[in-house]
Parts: sequence; structure tokens; C-alpha cells
Amino acid sequence: MTPLETTQLPAVVLVRPENPENIGLAARAMKNTGFFDLRLSGIRRLSPVAYRTAVHAGEILDGAKLFPTLEEATADLHFVAASTAKRRKLSSWVEWDEAAGRIAALPSATRVGLLFGNERTGLTRAELGWANLVFTIPQACRQPSYNLGAAVLLTLYSLFVGGTAGRKAAVLDRELSLPRRDQDETIDRIIAKLSGRGFIHRTNRDHVSAWVRDYFGRTAMTARDRGFLLALFGKNLDK
Amino acid sequence: MTPLETTQLPAVVLVRPENPENIGLAARAMKNTGFFDLRLSGIRRLSPVAYRTAVHAGEILDGAKLFPTLEEATADLHFVAASTAKRRKLSSWVEWDEAAGRIAALPSATRVGLLFGNERTGLTRAELGWANLVFTIPQACRQPSYNLGAAVLLTLYSLFVGGTAGRKAAVLDRELSLPRRDQDETIDRIIAKLSGRGFIHRTNRDHVSAWVRDYFGRTAMTARDRGFLLALFGKNLDK
Repeated sequence: MTPLETTQLPAVVLVRPENPENIGLAARAMKNTGFFDLRLSGIRRLSPVAYRTAVHAGEILDGAKLFPTLEEATADLHFVAASTAKRRKLSSWVEWDEAAGRIAALPSATRVGLLFGNERTGLTRAELGWANLVFTIPQACRQPSYNLGAAVLLTLYSLFVGGTAGRKAAVLDRELSLPRRDQDETIDRIIAKLSGRGFIHRTNRDHVSAWVRDYFGRTAMTARDRGFLLALFGKNLDK
Repeated sequence: MTPLETTQLPAVVLVRPENPENIGLAARAMKNTGFFDLRLSGIRRLSPVAYRTAVHAGEILDGAKLFPTLEEATADLHFVAASTAKRRKLSSWVEWDEAAGRIAALPSATRVGLLFGNERTGLTRAELGWANLVFTIPQACRQPSYNLGAAVLLTLYSLFVGGTAGRKAAVLDRELSLPRRDQDETIDRIIAKLSGRGFIHRTNRDHVSAWVRDYFGRTAMTARDRGFLLALFGKNLDK
């Protein structure tokens, strides 16, 4: 078993975390399992209380980056997977084991982010929509759900022990996805083109746009895909 | 692999736990993963503080049994496995994955106990000697070790998912992908539409068709996706 390469170690993105103790527990879980890129969105500053539960993982907190929005926190990532306690009727929804397999199979230079929502509310629909993949960690009961620190620990531990070995070789030639921001910009352009053509219009805008976002979001688009898609929707629909 | 029988669900034995918050977190981890037999040794009473971190797992605490000694706490068990943060030169020492495999392979009526020591000191040599098996959960760093709640969670979660049915039900609500043949037929229709529009033509046919097949093939298309795609490429490009 070889560990994940440093260059592709997923970032942990905590979205609007409420309780600094949980931030510290997440940092400790990251240190325990060998991860270091912690990002926090929607909070202004890191409370010293977080250092208490981090124990010897204070260095992870020292290196944590704060972002005003989720979009900024994930802009440079190629593949974003979001945790949700509830099963979702989203086509991007899978159980955690499947998500872990998908992450392990990504090209080795892929920068991956794992999103975890606020303790009480979880991630909003819009935040889940930002992810390429939405996953749920299996549990035996309906209530309570895993707490934030537990969800971070379980996902990181399974990536740590599952460590991608020989599968690397198999995915080496695969092309890298675009940064998530560029994927989304391409989807915006597709939606604009479809609106321009009248395919998307006032009465169907919400549900067609939602489908376009979901469907094309799922593909973890590469630069080559973008070229084809823009040609397909751009030039052709402009005729 | 069949699910663990209720009769053989391991008991969790916390030995001289110091921090009631950790007892609550252990109870919550048990509820999350479907275990219920909590035993506490070497403490006189359960602090109400434990109920705060247990959240909706208070029933596990209500049912917890207190024993003066480890021997009494484990007297009725058939097989005792003890957690230790450090690798030990004991012939009973294995990594957790191997311990989990050994536990799963025990006859189904075996009553198993998982021992976890005091937060600061862990289990003493004598306590480890009481176990049939001593295990360490793999970790990436030397310090800090997993905290007590984390160690309970990781071991129970892996027994839960390693042995669980029921997960099948979890994926039932997800919309099924089309049969692969129907996905491919839809892709053929997209290619035909693009050819009709002149987007695919004699000189680019091979490489554009190959991209369409790959890109839309990756999405594991559902019936709903097909509806949108045919509308998108069919009606719109026919204009």
C-alpha cells in the first residue's frame, strides 16, 4: 500500500463551520491520516478554541486558509466532492465507498476538495450543486448523523488506508479536469447559448438550467471537452 | 459477506475513561454504526456531560453497564480485542485490518469485546495481556494519536460497512442509468443529429464521434438525461 502522493492529497473544505472545537477535531483527523490542506469558508477568523481540540495538530490550523465564499475556496480545485447526511435524489449522489473509488481513479495531478457543511444545516442545495459528486457516509441509524469531525475522519481514513497503488499507472494518461471555476464558466456559457437560441426561456429556465448544471457538472470536464462543447453549442447553435 | 448478527455485535468497553465528553462521542459513534452494548470499567458513575456529546445517542448511555474492573466487564465475552496506539512486540499484536478480519471470521455466536484505554495512558500491559488480540489503527503521524472517540468510531465503522447489507436499499432511490445499449443508442442519435447539421463531417468524423462517445458515455445517462439531450440536440439543432 503506498500513500496518496502529496501533490494530489485532497483539500478539506469546511463550509460555515460553527463550532471551533469541530475545526480542531477535523485538523487532528487530518494530521492523523496525513492530510494538510485545510480551507475554511464563510468564517472571519479561527478561534483559539480550535487549537485545544487539535492537540498536536496545531500546524494544520496554522496553515489553514480562510475564504469568504465556497467558490473562492474551491476555485483552483479540479474535482469537488461534497458530504451530505441525507440521501439525495441527485444524479451526482453516491455512497462514500463509490466516491472514494472515483477519487482514487482520478489522474494523479488532480486537485481534489472534500466539502463538509455547517454542523446543523449541512450544505445547502446550491453548495451541493457546486460539487462534481455528492456522497453520504453509510450509517446504521437515522439520528443522529455523524458529527463534523467524525465525517472528516471517516473519509480521510478510508482514503489513507485505501491509498492508491497500482491504479496510478492505469490513470496516468488520463487528462486532468479543468479547475472547477473554469468548468462552471463553461457551463454558464452553454446556458447562455441555449438561452440565446430560445431553448431555455422564461418558463423552463430553472429546471433546464438545473439539469445542464448537473449533467455537465458530473463529467469533470477537461480542456479538450470544453473545446468540443463550446464548438458544439457555440458555433453550431449560432447558425 | 452477511451482516453481523445482533447476538454477536461486539461490546465496546471503555477502560478508565477520563473525559465524559469522550464517553458521549463513543456512544454517538456506536449509534451511528449500529452497536449498543457499552461497558465502562473503573468509573463510579456516568456524568451528565456525556449526554451532551452523545446528542441523540442518549439511549446507549442509558443502557451502559458500569463495572469496577476490566475482568468483570469482560467476563461473559468470548473474544477480547484491545486497541493500542503503539505497535507492540506482543505476539497478539496486529494491524486493525487484520483484527477486523479475524473478528468477522469468528463463529457467529461469539461475543466480542473491543477495549479502549484511558485517553492519556492507554491500556496498561496487564490490560493488554487480558486481550485475545491487540491492534493498532494505522495512522500517518507519530503524534497525536487518534482520540478515544475517533478510535471507537473507526473500528466500529469498519465492522459496520465490512459486514453490512442494507446498503443496497440506500441506492434504490437513485435514478438508475439506462441500460448501456440505450445509452449508446442515444449517443448514436446525437452523432446523427450532429452529422445532419454538418458539425460532424467527412474530415472530422472519427475524432469528433470518438469524443462524443467518450464524453456522453462517461455520464452514465439516465432516462431523464436522455430526454433533455434529445430535446437539446434534436429539436434545437433541427432549427
